Amino acid sequence: MQRPLIFVTNDDGITAPGILFLVSVAKQFGDVAVIAPDKPQSGMGHAITINSTLRINKSNFHDVLIEYACSGTPVDCVKMAVNKILPRKADLVLSGINHGSNSSINVIYSGTMSAAIEGALESTPAIGFSLCDYGIDADFSQARKEIEKIIAETLKNKLPNGVCLNVNIPKLKADELKGIKVCRQATANWVEEFEERKDPYGRPYYWLTGKFVNFEPESTDTDEWALANGFISVVPTQCDLTSHKNIEPLKKLLQ
Amino acid sequence: MQRPLIFVTNDDGITAPGILFLVSVAKQFGDVAVIAPDKPQSGMGHAITINSTLRINKSNFHDVLIEYACSGTPVDCVKMAVNKILPRKADLVLSGINHGSNSSINVIYSGTMSAAIEGALESTPAIGFSLCDYGIDADFSQARKEIEKIIAETLKNKLPNGVCLNVNIPKLKADELKGIKVCRQATANWVEEFEERKDPYGRPYYWLTGKFVNFEPESTDTDEWALANGFISVVPTQCDLTSHKNIEPLKKLLQ
Repeated sequence: MQRPLIFVTNDDGITAPGILFLVSVAKQFGDVAVIAPDKPQSGMGHAITINSTLRINKSNFHDVLIEYACSGTPVDCVKMAVNKILPRKADLVLSGINHGSNSSINVIYSGTMSAAIEGALESTPAIGFSLCDYGIDADFSQARKEIEKIIAETLKNKLPNGVCLNVNIPKLKADELKGIKVCRQATANWVEEFEERKDPYGRPYYWLTGKFVNFEPESTDTDEWALANGFISVVPTQCDLTSHKNIEPLKKLLQ
Repeated sequence: MQRPLIFVTNDDGITAPGILFLVSVAKQFGDVAVIAPDKPQSGMGHAITINSTLRINKSNFHDVLIEYACSGTPVDCVKMAVNKILPRKADLVLSGINHGSNSSINVIYSGTMSAAIEGALESTPAIGFSLCDYGIDADFSQARKEIEKIIAETLKNKLPNGVCLNVNIPKLKADELKGIKVCRQATANWVEEFEERKDPYGRPYYWLTGKFVNFEPESTDTDEWALANGFISVVPTQCDLTSHKNIEPLKKLLQ
């Protein structure tokens, strides 16, 4: 039987520690193809490159079947893989492991999760992994057992068409992790502050900074609750943005 | 009574004909503040600028209360407006009018709609408008009556918290438009082709091109159906990406 073809990408760039670890896990399960951004692409959301051109360059940072660094966004990498590079349809798309959380509302700003969502749009089972630790010395191996379980079950059972998994891992030691919790995206947003600085010519420029606000800290069925309580959160994620329950009320107003 | 404060942005850039028209309509309803990208930002999705800095420059292309051109993405413009520039919370966020469709799956790639979604995340009623016409001579005025109606009703009735409207307008004359249809996002995707070219040094580069595929052309309750049948489509849009119906089945596999 043919080994599964596993496509791996991320948004922190092809040499980030997180993708290095994820590739090492993926190799246990199949042949691996890596097409990942040639530079950090955090916060790129579902951006695609349509007003400029794309480059891909062969790379050999990872010891895998196929490897390219791409000048574009994480979603560009998925589209490039699916339509240009992969010899056949991948059995699984893995994205990450992201350096930092992609729980709750972060899912829409996240290049990591957008790559997983794009995989799902291509009808391929897809998983985005994120570790709630921005440190350069973040230890991705503490949740290795649970990451392997999630990958194994996804390869075995697939996922419903159009659905991917948003997996977030709290910054804990292996023996402190309480297990896996399947949950929903918490309702939240970011309250931003723009830090103003002056350039050498006296002109202002700004850095975007912000504070995450969970609007429902008391709810126990959310990813934020799971993470705060020592669980790895898994949110089945899809791309229908329709607010179905508001269709009928709006018809009365507008039609 | 104070006039409403209406914040207008887009993704085609602050001098695009679409935002010029939208500002002219917005002025009928209130005081207008424009903070929009200083260059085209199509396809930027929900990208935000976190790895580099942002600039804003006063501008006077539109004759409005407040006007800045911003170096960032459409979502950056909304965050900058809300947290830095607007004197008070806006009563309405308008985004567009986009030059080209943002119906169906295009909603996640769209800078126009991401700005509207960001407005909704800031608990402000928000509407993204798009005209299904990429031409530079696109005539935005044909649907003026319906655009005014949608803005008036939204100002009067607000929208549920976290919900915005995705309004797409078919390329038709005013007397050919059949009215407004409130509907859901059609299930679809893009089948991409990367057009390969060679630079003057013989190295390949790529242009992303693609063909839109509607997976449910027979469904009559979608935005694609509405547009194909002469209606302006209005999809209530929100940002919970959770696939709620898949939570319980996944618990059996993973917990």
